[in-house]
Amino acid sequence: MSDTLGGHGSLSDYAVTDGLRTRFHIPEEWSFAIPKLVEWRDCDGFAHVNHTAYLSWYESLRNIYFEVLGHPRHAMNVPGPVMKHLETEYIRGLSYHTPICITGRTVSMRNTSMVMEYATWDEQGCCNWSTQLFVLIVNATGKKAPIPPELRAAIIALDHPEQS
Amino acid sequence: MSDTLGGHGSLSDYAVTDGLRTRFHIPEEWSFAIPKLVEWRDCDGFAHVNHTAYLSWYESLRNIYFEVLGHPRHAMNVPGPVMKHLETEYIRGLSYHTPICITGRTVSMRNTSMVMEYATWDEQGCCNWSTQLFVLIVNATGKKAPIPPELRAAIIALDHPEQS
Amino acid sequence: MSDTLGGHGSLSDYAVTDGLRTRFHIPEEWSFAIPKLVEWRDCDGFAHVNHTAYLSWYESLRNIYFEVLGHPRHAMNVPGPVMKHLETEYIRGLSYHTPICITGRTVSMRNTSMVMEYATWDEQGCCNWSTQLFVLIVNATGKKAPIPPELRAAIIALDHPEQS
Amino acid sequence: MSDTLGGHGSLSDYAVTDGLRTRFHIPEEWSFAIPKLVEWRDCDGFAHVNHTAYLSWYESLRNIYFEVLGHPRHAMNVPGPVMKHLETEYIRGLSYHTPICITGRTVSMRNTSMVMEYATWDEQGCCNWSTQLFVLIVNATGKKAPIPPELRAAIIALDHPEQS
Repeated sequence: MSDTLGGHGSLSDYAVTDGLRTRFHIPEEWSFAIPKLVEWRDCDGFAHVNHTAYLSWYESLRNIYFEVLGHPRHAMNVPGPVMKHLETEYIRGLSYHTPICITGRTVSMRNTSMVMEYATWDEQGCCNWSTQLFVLIVNATGKKAPIPPELRAAIIALDHPEQS
Repeated sequence: MSDTLGGHGSLSDYAVTDGLRTRFHIPEEWSFAIPKLVEWRDCDGFAHVNHTAYLSWYESLRNIYFEVLGHPRHAMNVPGPVMKHLETEYIRGLSYHTPICITGRTVSMRNTSMVMEYATWDEQGCCNWSTQLFVLIVNATGKKAPIPPELRAAIIALDHPEQS
Repeated sequence: MSDTLGGHGSLSDYAVTDGLRTRFHIPEEWSFAIPKLVEWRDCDGFAHVNHTAYLSWYESLRNIYFEVLGHPRHAMNVPGPVMKHLETEYIRGLSYHTPICITGRTVSMRNTSMVMEYATWDEQGCCNWSTQLFVLIVNATGKKAPIPPELRAAIIALDHPEQS
Repeated sequence: MSDTLGGHGSLSDYAVTDGLRTRFHIPEEWSFAIPKLVEWRDCDGFAHVNHTAYLSWYESLRNIYFEVLGHPRHAMNVPGPVMKHLETEYIRGLSYHTPICITGRTVSMRNTSMVMEYATWDEQGCCNWSTQLFVLIVNATGKKAPIPPELRAAIIALDHPEQS
């Protein structure tokens, strides 16, 4: 965590370094990562990660991704991503305190919507993968909003998503 | 909650009554339901239900569904459903303390796997829908197990799923 | 869950019935109860209830208690209870799908603050007990607010708390 | 996160550095810290940290504290801390994505029990403080166990707790 005002640091703090890429077998298409340990609160009664915990990790990564790319913090009058559809593949279970790496990237953007992919990696490779469709909504009005040009440009520079 | 040993009651306690069907606009194909209120702990910073809360509700319903149909409680040496894939459609947001009804049913069964559907209903109809693929695994060994014949029969009697 | 507008039912839906009192060994001083099953999402990696789950149950009960006693639902411009201090005694662990009963009551009120007690009961008696101090705050302004007279009267009628 | 087998790093990774001490106003008696951001999943419907989230943060810190001091990871046959009593003071609310620092230390040890303190700090100082009493229990048997001498020595070296 760097000492910037917001506290979330800058893009380089979330880079998939060569060390992470090698350790967790992360392919080239991923550029944004958060390494962490599986926490006790993520585990269920069999001491494995509960199926919802992956989605909370992806949410936390997404929130940082947006801010680090310059989008204003969640607020009622700011366009924010609202989940419309998600698909998740549970490839391999994870146990408590396993070192993991969470990655996220934007794979496509339209005017007011975007598709992001997320994955969880341990030292054997990919354990979990998710594709999620979001619409940008201004919470105070419930109205759709176009992806702001600055955010769009930052996402293009980082992830080279399809656009339509 | 009835006074049976297990505490979860019996199948009739989870029937989609005419009252629930009318109030929440639940179609005929659903037979198993849990009415509840949206809780504060299910809401996120915009006072809407977080996208993971629906999945926790479906998990709770699934656990009761299995037990009420006679399957033994989760334990290391008992075959239990392990999530392999889920797809969820977020149709309409929900706010705190809204009366809702959660429904679940089995839509298909193979030898060691099954597909279940879940939905969340408020008084305007369906808000959220999910399709989930499970494999039955004995946790202690990590081995797949066939769906026990008694459970299979009970599911067929309730939900008439496809079989293959 | 009754069919009232709010969905939370009325005070009589949360009475400690003779059946509950006997089954869960609940003493006379408790009048407000929610029976439930321990859920999978409340359990940690040893399949016991996590220490935070009790507090979430108490929060859910408290939210219903306030509404059933006529206080408006949580909103930015409505005085709501903000936690200042809590003390919790963990008496006996609980496992998954155990039938339990959650109780709550107000033990004292001042002008802008109140102390509530909560407890969790299984069929052997009290498993967990908590005392919590709240201040009523209007969230939009951060200002303390007196306990509204209607709420105060309803709490007195139900729980006979000390006043000062 | 260092590249050790366990993934949790070593004691020096959790030191209260001069930078952390100054930024978060952490007094000398604290030696073990985890800086982080308030996550969306920690916030409730008013976009403030829910009262249970602090306790989950303390739990996560405690789990790392024990392992970094050489105690074996949570397992059924390993003595682990079981919560008996907790007291928590909610001093000041926290909002989403605020940079914070969590600290923990052992303040006293007896034969089979210990008292730990935890605190949450933002850039204005202490927001939340908790004192928690644990008994060491072997989960598989439910029996109390003495604090292992190696763990005791490591805790003394780090935190200089009272002993009795």
